[in-house]
Amino acid sequence: MQSTSSPVRITASEGENQPERTPELAALYRGFESELLIPLWTEIGDLMPSAPRSKALPHLWRWERLLPMAERAGELVPVGRGGERRAIALANPGLGGRPFATPTLWAAIQYLNPGEDAPVHRHTQNAFRFVVEGEGVWTVVNGDPVAMRRGDFLPQAGWNWHGHHNITDHPMAWIDGLDIPFQYFTDSTFFEFGPDEVETREAPERSRSERLWAHPGLRPLTHLEPAPATPLLAYRWEHTDRALAEQLALEAEGYHATIEPGHAAVRFTNPTTGGDIMPTMRTEFHRLAPDTATAPVREVGSSVYQVFDGTGEVTVADVSWQVSRGDLFVVPSWQPLTVTTDRGLDLFRFSDTPIAERLHLHRTHTPEDNR
Amino acid sequence: MQSTSSPVRITASEGENQPERTPELAALYRGFESELLIPLWTEIGDLMPSAPRSKALPHLWRWERLLPMAERAGELVPVGRGGERRAIALANPGLGGRPFATPTLWAAIQYLNPGEDAPVHRHTQNAFRFVVEGEGVWTVVNGDPVAMRRGDFLPQAGWNWHGHHNITDHPMAWIDGLDIPFQYFTDSTFFEFGPDEVETREAPERSRSERLWAHPGLRPLTHLEPAPATPLLAYRWEHTDRALAEQLALEAEGYHATIEPGHAAVRFTNPTTGGDIMPTMRTEFHRLAPDTATAPVREVGSSVYQVFDGTGEVTVADVSWQVSRGDLFVVPSWQPLTVTTDRGLDLFRFSDTPIAERLHLHRTHTPEDNR
Amino acid sequence: MQSTSSPVRITASEGENQPERTPELAALYRGFESELLIPLWTEIGDLMPSAPRSKALPHLWRWERLLPMAERAGELVPVGRGGERRAIALANPGLGGRPFATPTLWAAIQYLNPGEDAPVHRHTQNAFRFVVEGEGVWTVVNGDPVAMRRGDFLPQAGWNWHGHHNITDHPMAWIDGLDIPFQYFTDSTFFEFGPDEVETREAPERSRSERLWAHPGLRPLTHLEPAPATPLLAYRWEHTDRALAEQLALEAEGYHATIEPGHAAVRFTNPTTGGDIMPTMRTEFHRLAPDTATAPVREVGSSVYQVFDGTGEVTVADVSWQVSRGDLFVVPSWQPLTVTTDRGLDLFRFSDTPIAERLHLHRTHTPEDNR
Amino acid sequence: MQSTSSPVRITASEGENQPERTPELAALYRGFESELLIPLWTEIGDLMPSAPRSKALPHLWRWERLLPMAERAGELVPVGRGGERRAIALANPGLGGRPFATPTLWAAIQYLNPGEDAPVHRHTQNAFRFVVEGEGVWTVVNGDPVAMRRGDFLPQAGWNWHGHHNITDHPMAWIDGLDIPFQYFTDSTFFEFGPDEVETREAPERSRSERLWAHPGLRPLTHLEPAPATPLLAYRWEHTDRALAEQLALEAEGYHATIEPGHAAVRFTNPTTGGDIMPTMRTEFHRLAPDTATAPVREVGSSVYQVFDGTGEVTVADVSWQVSRGDLFVVPSWQPLTVTTDRGLDLFRFSDTPIAERLHLHRTHTPEDNR
Repeated sequence: MQSTSSPVRITASEGENQPERTPELAALYRGFESELLIPLWTEIGDLMPSAPRSKALPHLWRWERLLPMAERAGELVPVGRGGERRAIALANPGLGGRPFATPTLWAAIQYLNPGEDAPVHRHTQNAFRFVVEGEGVWTVVNGDPVAMRRGDFLPQAGWNWHGHHNITDHPMAWIDGLDIPFQYFTDSTFFEFGPDEVETREAPERSRSERLWAHPGLRPLTHLEPAPATPLLAYRWEHTDRALAEQLALEAEGYHATIEPGHAAVRFTNPTTGGDIMPTMRTEFHRLAPDTATAPVREVGSSVYQVFDGTGEVTVADVSWQVSRGDLFVVPSWQPLTVTTDRGLDLFRFSDTPIAERLHLHRTHTPEDNR
Repeated sequence: MQSTSSPVRITASEGENQPERTPELAALYRGFESELLIPLWTEIGDLMPSAPRSKALPHLWRWERLLPMAERAGELVPVGRGGERRAIALANPGLGGRPFATPTLWAAIQYLNPGEDAPVHRHTQNAFRFVVEGEGVWTVVNGDPVAMRRGDFLPQAGWNWHGHHNITDHPMAWIDGLDIPFQYFTDSTFFEFGPDEVETREAPERSRSERLWAHPGLRPLTHLEPAPATPLLAYRWEHTDRALAEQLALEAEGYHATIEPGHAAVRFTNPTTGGDIMPTMRTEFHRLAPDTATAPVREVGSSVYQVFDGTGEVTVADVSWQVSRGDLFVVPSWQPLTVTTDRGLDLFRFSDTPIAERLHLHRTHTPEDNR
Repeated sequence: MQSTSSPVRITASEGENQPERTPELAALYRGFESELLIPLWTEIGDLMPSAPRSKALPHLWRWERLLPMAERAGELVPVGRGGERRAIALANPGLGGRPFATPTLWAAIQYLNPGEDAPVHRHTQNAFRFVVEGEGVWTVVNGDPVAMRRGDFLPQAGWNWHGHHNITDHPMAWIDGLDIPFQYFTDSTFFEFGPDEVETREAPERSRSERLWAHPGLRPLTHLEPAPATPLLAYRWEHTDRALAEQLALEAEGYHATIEPGHAAVRFTNPTTGGDIMPTMRTEFHRLAPDTATAPVREVGSSVYQVFDGTGEVTVADVSWQVSRGDLFVVPSWQPLTVTTDRGLDLFRFSDTPIAERLHLHRTHTPEDNR
Repeated sequence: MQSTSSPVRITASEGENQPERTPELAALYRGFESELLIPLWTEIGDLMPSAPRSKALPHLWRWERLLPMAERAGELVPVGRGGERRAIALANPGLGGRPFATPTLWAAIQYLNPGEDAPVHRHTQNAFRFVVEGEGVWTVVNGDPVAMRRGDFLPQAGWNWHGHHNITDHPMAWIDGLDIPFQYFTDSTFFEFGPDEVETREAPERSRSERLWAHPGLRPLTHLEPAPATPLLAYRWEHTDRALAEQLALEAEGYHATIEPGHAAVRFTNPTTGGDIMPTMRTEFHRLAPDTATAPVREVGSSVYQVFDGTGEVTVADVSWQVSRGDLFVVPSWQPLTVTTDRGLDLFRFSDTPIAERLHLHRTHTPEDNR
């Protein structure tokens, strides 16, 4: 059963700003509890802090420890209808042992053995895949087979049918990002099963979506309405890499092209609107040139980063990590983030920022704001 | 301290769709736990149901029991800096004993004694007040004093300074609605203290915001940009009542003016956009003529209703209540709602629907959808 | 007949910036003419001036001369199918003898005798009526009868069926504003005939559109989509007058409510969007307190003003007029406008500004821009 | 001089729907004329037709006759400050001998000799260049040099500084499209002179704008606001050609990718919005496979087409032409257009459709609408 009635307990001690706990007040509080009522004055410190105090903690998951777990799951756990995916999620240590990387975001490693199919389904959760290494799996979205290769970003918005199959003789792992916690919390999730196997074994280099949409600034006249999520199912590494390299080259030539010295960045966008690829998630790629240090930034909303290449040091609030390829880390809302690198660093990022932006709750704070 | 590290525990029994719990699998699960990982396949049933299964429960709070609690708090609990407001919140019995009416919405009764001031503050939480009975308090928003009287709806969007003061010799109670749980969950809340007393003791019939904005279809040339939230600080009962009466009169004359037979309804809107009064909350007023029964409706997102006048029977999923003036009830996401009345019923409603709509997660289901 | 082939003639003299008119060049120009070609270099001075130089001239039409013309037309010219309306248009003296008040706007006085019907039709042209004096005509829009009285503004967007009938025993005159020249120039006009008489002889105080829509900030749940033009068919003088009076009162109390000292102004808006009442026309009402002088303003786009009440002096570029009730004047694009009044002045204004705004061509210039 | 007062003359004969021309009516009409008034009833047939009847005529300009004119101008007419451009405009034979291809659009051939500079200026008119053959000119937009080559589309929105220079030893011609007639008519044009020579002699393969923006679906984080016009200054033929070829290939594979059988089409879009490249002009490229015939289409608004490659037969209303490379033709508003081809045809198109769309005046009519 999904819900059970839970008792209300008013725990306020006789602390700061609290009325004295007289017998009369204690009786009133017992009355509140029996009527399912809770006063604001005992809760306001937790509920309405002066700035966001996320329960989520900054945390790092090492790729070198994550990948063997996925490989072992590949040996022990079949993939099929019911479990649906061999996906293993990051559980933020501040979020009560739930499979939530942040309060709103799910991040998992998914693993598919040679010849396996992850069965077709659809759900309202928005999803994407990002490939830090390997290739050989095609994700089939509404019947369109999309190759997955290192560096590719593969968005797949809510309520599209999709399954995956591995056509090679080696396993493949990648990262899934979804808004599962957000939709779980807001009670907006729907789910439907499709066929147990993907509709097509075709394995083309380029999906049909790319053939229609991956031409810069060009839009097919068959699709002229703004779409809530991107119709382009693959953003290839070749393009991302070139865009970032050009920004650093333009900076070196003296033009404004980077967001700060040595820091190139692109956002993956919906070509029908120029906005985020999905209503609830933002995805970006950041490249730091060697010997770059970013200025600290705070932002409302939470992010998950994966190191795509290079090495560096990441500091979130008062925690620091040395990071390298495949490592994943979480930046909770309003925690300051700084990244430094000697030899250069490529970072994939996803965040829930569109939620805050669309609801006029977004704020950001950079050192410039202090001037 | 706000966050503490919590253990991960994989609780999946050897049930449906689960791999057999071999010693190897048990070891793998222990490895997951130590690495802060949780598989999808043990959690998918809870996380990704075929339709929303809210933990929130349908529940009714009786005004006749709520008001005496507030009156007693008026005797025992001072209002002032720190506790900020003498507000007592509805705690949904499915939500773990937290002061959340629904997963996203806060609903509370607030009570102010003669001569009292609720101190000035501002917060990112969007808020409103609705008055089911009484008068005599002025809420002062950014220095503009706004009278509160029976039937009035008083929106007050995030980050505006506001305080309340009671200028009469009798206490007054009203309902506060806020998006506290949503902002708490998404870590987007900011809060600042203002003066301990409201800036002005003026008590005009009409606020300055009404004098500028409450003219149908007319906009002052001093304010031409779309505002994220309504600049109109009071929607008076006189207008709401007349709009509803006109809809029923037009229906009686044979014109399309009601959403179903005998069911008139208006939405409170932002005159600068025609959209909802705030980015996260929708507010409406519904009037059922005598001998009216509404068709069942399901909607993604949660609502809180307050009975303004009349009597009727409300059914949410498999729970039914006889309701009368002041009663408050909760409709969780996707639970079907039906209302019937013999003698007529006036209902104030607030919901989190703009969140789902702006994020393309909204769905609704009415009997027509089955045809 | 719609089109005839016209000869091309290159008229450039041997003037400034022109190449010398050698025999070879003359031969080339004759070649251009025979091939239907015209060079930029002979035309650029006219086509691409440093700032707009409208062919339209500032001009004033006196109500005391306009109204008798309309009355005489009421005696001599029947109203009926074919001619459609007894409307007499202002012909700007700079616009080639065409019935265009400005390059984009039509302004006419319409006159209806007791008992007459102006037959039902619809057209893509956006239209409105404004009543400077009199009453007794109902305009019937899609079957909804709308009373017309002094001070009322009655929008009626393109492609709605409409006719007028005079139910009294006295004639009535009013002003029609349309975007006829704009749609004529851009070839976007469609037109259809309806019945010869209006559908209903009902003459209610308030139209059904007002009963549904004229409640400040309230929207019927039957109509939730943004509409391209306002669904409210009458903006009553009582509301306009009060809104303007409140702005001047608030200014007197020390608050920011007027656009400059003594100058109150409201815009008529579409309650479904907060924007202009129609896609091509903006309508406003301005009230100048006694002893007020406005700062000069230039704006891209053209306007027509009608004096509703009071007296004053209007200056457009280097032309000045003393104006009083009913007088109409034209302000061409980018011509500076100044108005002064000793005894107070009420002005109705309509303009084509939404065209420039929606196409990112709008500019304005006020004395502040020079600082 | 910009404006002169013109006499008003009411020319209505005693025709259909006209009142009998009695002496009294004649006197009234003389009164109208002296007061600068014109009745609707004498003009309505011309002003308010049942469907658009453009004064513009369908017309074809042959490239083989146009280009020699431009070459001869290259010999006789210098390019420089004052005349600004060696551009020769199409003068629609229905538009009174003015240099207007359609009521709203300017289309010209521009010609630049080896080593010449077209001086820097900026204007509110939106502009673009399209290259049907040749190369060697760089257009410098706000200091960014943009190569021009066969098949390239080069947008350049209003109020950006720009000049052109030819770095080769051969002349180059191309097509300019602007909204000069529209801005002339609506009195919204501003113009400023810049330097006599372009700011840079650099001649890179790719402009800086392409290096920042021509990556499919990727957006630099330095530019996150929607821009009213495209920041991408060159849409290269290589991409356009591939997009069209892919559509025809997908169609051959059985997928929906063309707008009708054998008819591929892309729209050039603003990557910051997904909409048209400029507020007033739409630009598209159409490819007809061999043995294709398009269904007749009518649309509100006017278009200019240039044949980029191939041959075919074009029919506009009751006029037909055999067309080949470089030919330009005009389709007035609401005139039906059909194109057929045996050997295949590539067409560049520009139109004023965004004007009608943004002002809710757009309509289209295809054979499907008759079903």
